[in-house]
Amino acid sequence: MKTLTSKDNAQIKNILKLKKSAKYRRQSGCFIAEGLRVCVDAVLSGAEIQALFVTKDAIEKNSDAYNTLSSHADETFVLSSALFDYISDTQTPQGFLCVIKTLDKSAYFDKIDNGGKYLVLDNVQDPNNLGTILRSAEAFGVCGVIMSDDCCDIYNPKVVRGSMGAVFRLAILSVSDLSVWFAEHPTLNTYAAVVDKDAVKVNEIAFEPPCAVVIGNEGNGIRQETAAACNHKITIPMDGKAESLNASAAAAILIWEMVK
Amino acid sequence: MKTLTSKDNAQIKNILKLKKSAKYRRQSGCFIAEGLRVCVDAVLSGAEIQALFVTKDAIEKNSDAYNTLSSHADETFVLSSALFDYISDTQTPQGFLCVIKTLDKSAYFDKIDNGGKYLVLDNVQDPNNLGTILRSAEAFGVCGVIMSDDCCDIYNPKVVRGSMGAVFRLAILSVSDLSVWFAEHPTLNTYAAVVDKDAVKVNEIAFEPPCAVVIGNEGNGIRQETAAACNHKITIPMDGKAESLNASAAAAILIWEMVK
Repeated sequence: MKTLTSKDNAQIKNILKLKKSAKYRRQSGCFIAEGLRVCVDAVLSGAEIQALFVTKDAIEKNSDAYNTLSSHADETFVLSSALFDYISDTQTPQGFLCVIKTLDKSAYFDKIDNGGKYLVLDNVQDPNNLGTILRSAEAFGVCGVIMSDDCCDIYNPKVVRGSMGAVFRLAILSVSDLSVWFAEHPTLNTYAAVVDKDAVKVNEIAFEPPCAVVIGNEGNGIRQETAAACNHKITIPMDGKAESLNASAAAAILIWEMVK
Repeated sequence: MKTLTSKDNAQIKNILKLKKSAKYRRQSGCFIAEGLRVCVDAVLSGAEIQALFVTKDAIEKNSDAYNTLSSHADETFVLSSALFDYISDTQTPQGFLCVIKTLDKSAYFDKIDNGGKYLVLDNVQDPNNLGTILRSAEAFGVCGVIMSDDCCDIYNPKVVRGSMGAVFRLAILSVSDLSVWFAEHPTLNTYAAVVDKDAVKVNEIAFEPPCAVVIGNEGNGIRQETAAACNHKITIPMDGKAESLNASAAAAILIWEMVK
């Protein structure tokens, strides 16, 4: 256990870079999780904790959680409250932050589960939406999530927090071209969610496993080439005045209809 | 049309107070909306625009929208880009911001629509959730929204933006005690959404109009006295590992099941 006091410390600088840059997260193979619950979730999910950062206050208030976390962390650093505030993303920091190694679950997708239900995300950009969508996917027991590689980074701190730790547990695959990946997995029935009154209503379709519902970008929907590569086009019928739902609200309904 | 150059101007100070303080919004009977789309939405919804704030750039880029907005605004002020950045909530400001008079739609609730479907929110706190929920409510044609008065303020800038203007158009009522309000409206069938495996599954219940689905606080769910005053308890069955959905994701599914 070491004590850190300076903003210029290499560990502190590393945290700030991990918070800000998806590129740096990819290069270093690490990301950060802040908050008691999400850090404990990471340990329980078997994630490798490279470093734990805590305040004295946090150790005193949550000694059991601290013992669990520090026994799983390669290194533990104690920070003053002021220094913790400096690295924290939240208004009232709980005093727990972990640097965690990213996981590669791509092997999970070598074979599509015949009874499986999957989620596909095409260029979803907003980290709050992505976190909420991953949380819904886990809640409803989705087998895995396939994401175009221009989606928001799953290790963005807002995604990690918003997903309530689902990023640690879900099987997630990043692919450069969804239409190519669909062609390589022809048994998967793909249902593109579109805003189109002529598409089949989501409540009038039987999702045939193995299947996947495909959700697109917040502003532009699913890319044309991705939609063209899908087997079906489905829509959520709406009676009201608004043009569309928030992407995470639409995703919740679509996943719910697929799995229920 | 007046030009503002100073941060110390009373109009600028007024905007900052309207952004930050729900109490000040209530006292002054005004709120702000930022962004081209949401400002135009406000005008189209018949909201009274007390003042329009624009940059020269915004006028040049969107002259039609500017003409519409300024013709409906009591006063128009032109700001330098730097001053607009100072009042803006967004990273890339569009250069349009309106001060709008709050609307009272409580008269709409004097009589419950016999065929109506309503949404009730009990102490929902997160502005992003509330915005998304109101957007979903409008998308599915919900008749009206009844909110406990300790919910997040609907005129919080994040709610206004996240609702995509639904706050201008939806009939929304604030009440101090939901259980009292339910007792005063005995014809309304109330369905409390709870996390409880023994509650009736939302997909196995017929919502009998006039009806309302009741959604609770993000952390603590529906208040005990509110839940006790409801006719039914319903739940969203989940197979996965997560304990619960994000409040706005749960709301989307519940509203969808109620109206479909």
